[in-house]
Amino acid sequence: MSRLLLFSLLYLFPPFILAGFSQLMNSPPIDSENRVTLTVNAPNAKEVKVINLSDTDAMGAAEYSLSKGEDGIWSVQTNPCRPGFHYYNLSIDGFECADPKSQLYFGWGKWTSGLEVPEPTPSFYTPRGEPKGEVTTHWYSSSATNTTRKCLIYTPPGYRSQTGVKYPVLYLQHGAGESELGWTMQGKVNVIMDNLIAEGKAKPMIIVMDNGYAADPASSNPSRPEAKDNRFEENLINELMPAVEANYRTLTGRKYRAIAGLSMGAGQAQRVGFAHLDLFSAIGAFSGGARDFDIETAFGGIFQDEDYFHKQVDLYWIGCGEQDFLYEGAKMQHLALAGKGIQHEWHVMQGSHEWQVWRRHLYEFAQKVFQP
Amino acid sequence: MSRLLLFSLLYLFPPFILAGFSQLMNSPPIDSENRVTLTVNAPNAKEVKVINLSDTDAMGAAEYSLSKGEDGIWSVQTNPCRPGFHYYNLSIDGFECADPKSQLYFGWGKWTSGLEVPEPTPSFYTPRGEPKGEVTTHWYSSSATNTTRKCLIYTPPGYRSQTGVKYPVLYLQHGAGESELGWTMQGKVNVIMDNLIAEGKAKPMIIVMDNGYAADPASSNPSRPEAKDNRFEENLINELMPAVEANYRTLTGRKYRAIAGLSMGAGQAQRVGFAHLDLFSAIGAFSGGARDFDIETAFGGIFQDEDYFHKQVDLYWIGCGEQDFLYEGAKMQHLALAGKGIQHEWHVMQGSHEWQVWRRHLYEFAQKVFQP
Repeated sequence: MSRLLLFSLLYLFPPFILAGFSQLMNSPPIDSENRVTLTVNAPNAKEVKVINLSDTDAMGAAEYSLSKGEDGIWSVQTNPCRPGFHYYNLSIDGFECADPKSQLYFGWGKWTSGLEVPEPTPSFYTPRGEPKGEVTTHWYSSSATNTTRKCLIYTPPGYRSQTGVKYPVLYLQHGAGESELGWTMQGKVNVIMDNLIAEGKAKPMIIVMDNGYAADPASSNPSRPEAKDNRFEENLINELMPAVEANYRTLTGRKYRAIAGLSMGAGQAQRVGFAHLDLFSAIGAFSGGARDFDIETAFGGIFQDEDYFHKQVDLYWIGCGEQDFLYEGAKMQHLALAGKGIQHEWHVMQGSHEWQVWRRHLYEFAQKVFQP
Repeated sequence: MSRLLLFSLLYLFPPFILAGFSQLMNSPPIDSENRVTLTVNAPNAKEVKVINLSDTDAMGAAEYSLSKGEDGIWSVQTNPCRPGFHYYNLSIDGFECADPKSQLYFGWGKWTSGLEVPEPTPSFYTPRGEPKGEVTTHWYSSSATNTTRKCLIYTPPGYRSQTGVKYPVLYLQHGAGESELGWTMQGKVNVIMDNLIAEGKAKPMIIVMDNGYAADPASSNPSRPEAKDNRFEENLINELMPAVEANYRTLTGRKYRAIAGLSMGAGQAQRVGFAHLDLFSAIGAFSGGARDFDIETAFGGIFQDEDYFHKQVDLYWIGCGEQDFLYEGAKMQHLALAGKGIQHEWHVMQGSHEWQVWRRHLYEFAQKVFQP
């Protein structure tokens, strides 16, 4: 009853409504040097820690121990954090959870705390003015999974008014443990694309972001299937793509379709893309290096016939952060491709296995794809 | 480094990717009698509880104490839970947080655990087949708040193909502590509307769901403003409505605009709606009773002139659950309106201050609004 009483008071005394319950309060404060102050109300805990889920430099340390104040509130001010998006968790005497005072994002297989640490100056992912694109949640029935699936679809500025215009389509995949929400919530896909299109640096395009997990309902444990039971390719080709082309003003034909993804999604983009060069002409692999890359056998042996590859593939774009744990694999892949004379774009930047790199990858890839 | 190693293993051995990280795993199991099994990995905790944030009946008890198993995992099986959507939290030695193993929803001013307890048979909010509507995230620049705001916009099945058709618009508000996401994530607005439209029970309509908090940037503390600094009305009338009508195929004029909301949003819908009967002709108040309702002074005295009220208002719909803590206020409002002969719809159902009631309210309201 105390909670209903609280709710009742909040309802009856509106000044408290906004003060207590604004979504705006929902980020830990960050000072001018990008030091973040985290506070935790755990009155009976013996040890409270912040666990940085990215590389050490992201938040200035791999973890922080909080101190308990006289008011019973635990707190810490971090070292300066690197600009960009960083996942973190709390540990309360070994119980690991999201920070109730932070914005949450779907990553690591669950809702996880995320910090957006600002750039010193406006960047390519800073929202500018109008016009803006939109991101639509599109639900559709899937036979491959026997579920109603949802994907997110970016449409560029002007899509609703310029009803005679058709657009090329990029299918863009998230990484392991994330979902169809990743590219919008963590990746700011709409801001990056709106800015690029406004500056004339990228073709206006539709971007389709579905979930990379598509469990076969016949698998022994449909709620926790193995990868062999992932019907992602079948779902994408037979269900998602027709649904998109039936409902959106798409330019059709392989010249106007690209597929890209990050980490696990990079593998999916390459596997599905190279298996369906009748459907796709451009492929992007963001932070997707594989240490066992063999140029003769990789992706169905697609690199064996250079002439066919160069005839069919308008853009093969590979990028990786230099501090990424997959960097050596990505670099080996690049060197093998270069050694065989396979045309591709190779993009290295500072950064680890993190969204700041993938935002930049999208920014670079989007300027190359669908160009004459 | 251990987490990067884990990530590396997950990347290199794909069978584990789907097993460990599927979004599908993200709900506690519910048995055929709607008993929910909750498990918590808190090895060093002394006391772990589940706190039901709704009325006692929602989850069969106000709270549950979990027991620690030999494997160190705490668990409990609840009593049978009532069908519908229920918020809950965990308490770990007094530290209150969302359940890392549940789906989260924005409510109570932060990301909070939610249980979707199934109906015994398909209901009005069970997804059916095609065609389906969509929900679009629309960003726009707001001078009232000096921010980029986002709202969610439901468009009915066929919106993208039937390009000559225009639609009436319902502005639909969430409750205190929730956000623009509430009506879609908790409320299943798209499923309810798709079903009603397919059955010919509701007019196809556009539904605009913005955030009810619109903080004045000049307030002394913009990140935690008081209610007097809420520019919701100005934002809605001067910024949101023009943006919607410029970008969506709307029927314009007051006959084709309605405003409704739940709890705090019910108050907003009535305050803004009755103050702008030049713009709106239908108003819905879901679980919004006020105990101090005075029919002479309420909402700018709108009920004083019955003839004007009846000429301007096509639908005034009030509903409340009989177990809602606001029920007596809502009933008093209904009786006062009836006593003065003010036409209105009054809908009572079983339920408390909860989403199951608001889903039903939308279901009923949508069948009455925009009807000849």
